[in-house]
Amino acid sequence: MQAFRKFIPLFDRVLVERVAAESVTKGGIMLPEKSQGKVLQATVVAVGPGARNKSGDIQPVSVKVGEKVLLPEYGGTKVNLDDKEYYLFRDGDILGKYVD
Amino acid sequence: MQAFRKFIPLFDRVLVERVAAESVTKGGIMLPEKSQGKVLQATVVAVGPGARNKSGDIQPVSVKVGEKVLLPEYGGTKVNLDDKEYYLFRDGDILGKYVD
Amino acid sequence: MQAFRKFIPLFDRVLVERVAAESVTKGGIMLPEKSQGKVLQATVVAVGPGARNKSGDIQPVSVKVGEKVLLPEYGGTKVNLDDKEYYLFRDGDILGKYVD
Amino acid sequence: MQAFRKFIPLFDRVLVERVAAESVTKGGIMLPEKSQGKVLQATVVAVGPGARNKSGDIQPVSVKVGEKVLLPEYGGTKVNLDDKEYYLFRDGDILGKYVD
Amino acid sequence: MQAFRKFIPLFDRVLVERVAAESVTKGGIMLPEKSQGKVLQATVVAVGPGARNKSGDIQPVSVKVGEKVLLPEYGGTKVNLDDKEYYLFRDGDILGKYVD
Amino acid sequence: MQAFRKFIPLFDRVLVERVAAESVTKGGIMLPEKSQGKVLQATVVAVGPGARNKSGDIQPVSVKVGEKVLLPEYGGTKVNLDDKEYYLFRDGDILGKYVD
Amino acid sequence: MQAFRKFIPLFDRVLVERVAAESVTKGGIMLPEKSQGKVLQATVVAVGPGARNKSGDIQPVSVKVGEKVLLPEYGGTKVNLDDKEYYLFRDGDILGKYVD
Repeated sequence: MQAFRKFIPLFDRVLVERVAAESVTKGGIMLPEKSQGKVLQATVVAVGPGARNKSGDIQPVSVKVGEKVLLPEYGGTKVNLDDKEYYLFRDGDILGKYVD
Repeated sequence: MQAFRKFIPLFDRVLVERVAAESVTKGGIMLPEKSQGKVLQATVVAVGPGARNKSGDIQPVSVKVGEKVLLPEYGGTKVNLDDKEYYLFRDGDILGKYVD
Repeated sequence: MQAFRKFIPLFDRVLVERVAAESVTKGGIMLPEKSQGKVLQATVVAVGPGARNKSGDIQPVSVKVGEKVLLPEYGGTKVNLDDKEYYLFRDGDILGKYVD
Repeated sequence: MQAFRKFIPLFDRVLVERVAAESVTKGGIMLPEKSQGKVLQATVVAVGPGARNKSGDIQPVSVKVGEKVLLPEYGGTKVNLDDKEYYLFRDGDILGKYVD
Repeated sequence: MQAFRKFIPLFDRVLVERVAAESVTKGGIMLPEKSQGKVLQATVVAVGPGARNKSGDIQPVSVKVGEKVLLPEYGGTKVNLDDKEYYLFRDGDILGKYVD
Repeated sequence: MQAFRKFIPLFDRVLVERVAAESVTKGGIMLPEKSQGKVLQATVVAVGPGARNKSGDIQPVSVKVGEKVLLPEYGGTKVNLDDKEYYLFRDGDILGKYVD
Repeated sequence: MQAFRKFIPLFDRVLVERVAAESVTKGGIMLPEKSQGKVLQATVVAVGPGARNKSGDIQPVSVKVGEKVLLPEYGGTKVNLDDKEYYLFRDGDILGKYVD
């Protein structure tokens, strides 16, 4: 978990780790990699302090570390930290979050 | 109905479920799928808290869960939740709503 | 008139019904459809509550239900309500109105 | 003059009537239509109430009915009222006015 | 000088007259028209009242009638007044002015 | 270190020096230049005073001299100072920073 | 130095004179013109009063006459004054300045 403590996104950026693609169907059949859809679910691993609004006040981001979020199909910046693949999204580009 | 409780759109996004296309005419004739127009009517199933305006205040979205809305022909983001197809629209892109 | 009571445009949208094209000249000669110009005059049938301005206040739309307006040649969104054809325009795109 | 009383432009739009092109030179020679330049001078026949500024206040237009104005070469919307040709321009697109 | 009294630019527009191109070098050699560079120096002959800023206050233009200014190479609108050629520029597009 | 004392970026610009690409793998094998990825990690060597926000107040940049930052893959302006290669980035384009 | 006293840039424009390209290497070898890089260092010779911000207040430019600045590779407007070549840049486009 060291990577998350070491890297802090700036402004309203959110660092996420995509959930591993399901390679087995509910029925137990293994899926070849091609059949696995693009993974749009991710876990928030680090958040920026938020961007400043027009009045100069910092607007905190709308997600928290540990939350499960839904990513847009396109966009985001791939970031390699400690040989692991993460993605940076602006807070406003994250579509929504999953709550229990 | 679990999907709606589990997913919360962020900012001014609205999650809708398109009304099933009418496959039978008023006169009772069955329509082949091609003849069925694109469905633009939808039911709101979840709404974001609203986006912040320039003053930093959150502006609640203009529709409520359960309301029937008219969607624009283009736009929106397809979202799969629990193997069901939903769409996310920004509040400002929804054309209008139906009231009784 | 049920359609107008049932559908409420959102924000600064205005629902209009185009005036029927004149198919007979002032002199009484019938015009083939091709010779009939594009109809730019319309009657307002429903209006949204208005959009919010930068200060967050709702700015009412500048036309009222029943008013005759002049539409721009392009733009607007065709909407079918109760098998009748209407058009949605943003308040700011309507060119002007006719008064007695 | 009925057309002017009947049609009211919305927002900061200005309805103008182009000055008739001069078809005779100062020396008295008739000009074929081709040699007549594009008419950029016009008379204001109706004005909108003005657009709202960011503070929500209505900003009256800068020209008055009856004033002679200089139009830009391109832009404007042709409008037919009572079988006569007029043009709508946004107040900010009118280049200047002629004063005595 | 009648043209200048008769025409008033609107908003932040500035009417200028380009300085005649020098057709003779300092050494006294006549230049063919091709060798004469594009004239970018001009004299201000009329100014608009200024545009309104976001607060709704009129911001006077930064040049005065009679001042010598440097024009950008491109832009501006050619205007014919009393058979003479002038140019309209927005105040913000004028590069600078010459002072004694 | 003289270069850093001599050059001051303007507004919200940040001068960075890219970390030298690793030419040896963790296992000790030397990498040919082609195999060395684009270096996106950099050290901040000078920062501007910050840009002014809409209210006219200067907004200090979000990184400090000496901090390790993550650069976007594209963008930035190459600057040569004292025969050494640096890069200028706007504060808002820097993706994040590394902390211990 | 008369040119600098005579020409005043408008708004946030800055007039600079590029430093002469070095045609001799540190080792004393003369460089052909091709080998001389594009000169990006310049001296400020005149500055505008500054542009107005949204509140209508004038924001002075961030450089002073006499300061050495670093120019971006592209942009700027060539200006000929007294047969000498200068460049106009917007204050915000100047990358940084050199201080002793």
